[in-house]
Amino acid sequence: MTTKAAGQPSRRGPYSKSTERRQAILAAAHAVFAAHGYRGGSLQDVADRVGMSQTSLLHYFPSKSDLLLAVLTWRDSITGDGTTPPDPEEKLVDAVIRQARFNEEIPGVIELYTVLCAESVTDRHPGREYFTERFDRLRRSYTRRFKELADEGRLRPGVEPEAAAATLIALWDGIQTQWLLAPESVDMAGCLRGYLELVLLPE
Amino acid sequence: MTTKAAGQPSRRGPYSKSTERRQAILAAAHAVFAAHGYRGGSLQDVADRVGMSQTSLLHYFPSKSDLLLAVLTWRDSITGDGTTPPDPEEKLVDAVIRQARFNEEIPGVIELYTVLCAESVTDRHPGREYFTERFDRLRRSYTRRFKELADEGRLRPGVEPEAAAATLIALWDGIQTQWLLAPESVDMAGCLRGYLELVLLPE
Repeated sequence: MTTKAAGQPSRRGPYSKSTERRQAILAAAHAVFAAHGYRGGSLQDVADRVGMSQTSLLHYFPSKSDLLLAVLTWRDSITGDGTTPPDPEEKLVDAVIRQARFNEEIPGVIELYTVLCAESVTDRHPGREYFTERFDRLRRSYTRRFKELADEGRLRPGVEPEAAAATLIALWDGIQTQWLLAPESVDMAGCLRGYLELVLLPE
Repeated sequence: MTTKAAGQPSRRGPYSKSTERRQAILAAAHAVFAAHGYRGGSLQDVADRVGMSQTSLLHYFPSKSDLLLAVLTWRDSITGDGTTPPDPEEKLVDAVIRQARFNEEIPGVIELYTVLCAESVTDRHPGREYFTERFDRLRRSYTRRFKELADEGRLRPGVEPEAAAATLIALWDGIQTQWLLAPESVDMAGCLRGYLELVLLPE
């Protein structure tokens, strides 16, 4: 079955070729799931985009749900998993605004996240565990951050770190959906900055 | 084809019978779309649930997208369209908390909303116009409310009514998703109350 491919000259050896195919499949799956959701996107669509058969595709990712999880992990490698800002000294407001502005440049990635996250609440969805764990991790991470700010006297009295963490994450997700539907009417970064300026006291 | 049914005694006449079937189809479609999304749910699943053929079902709703829009309109009749609190004198915080508590009792309805809303950002989704218009209407409605509160001196200085409106709606949507995935870890009403107590000054 692989005779033809093996007969062609390879400049990079089998490992890099395989890595390259995996990347191409991930990019195609990303586009298909963003455009149609996980349930609406088909493996055949993904295979068609990379010009391979479904059987070949399944050699790289044994099932559609494996492909989904690989796409989600790949997405984290593009946008970060939301908990590790590159510069630990960066201020929370600056880090959030920087990420929100970056996200505005990659609407397809935001669309994928929005669709798969919401879909994950449905029956037996293979992304459910990923998103449940992601939210747990994000809530813990932002709670820690808000507690540090409270210790520095920077959190407005009466604001609970746990509630502020869940609220910031929820606002971010919700405003992305509004922005995807009406980018000209919604100021994502402005809403996030507005919230953080409410809960944080000036230095 | 309808001989058998016509031969059965009918106590309510053809109109109410038809209304009853429509209601049964809407309830079934609601359950199917909430569990699998619009793209993942099939007309056959809906037809199976009400024990009719797909052909009979299409007599009531000519297409799957017609059925989707009817389900969304029906949902509004259960939860309200978000802009008309039953009591115009009710305080904003009370109205929001009351609705959030009500929503906790109907997780299936929230699941439907969450899934279809996110799915609507995908290519050529028949719900896109519904959700775009819904968010426009909600933003306008809450902006008016926050402006009234600003006129009464109740809005914290520096808070923009437009941004507060988009933020409240976004927070509400986002916190519902977190709650659906981890109901024991997320306090929906508490987060909404916390936000409103930040932007509103005490009377």
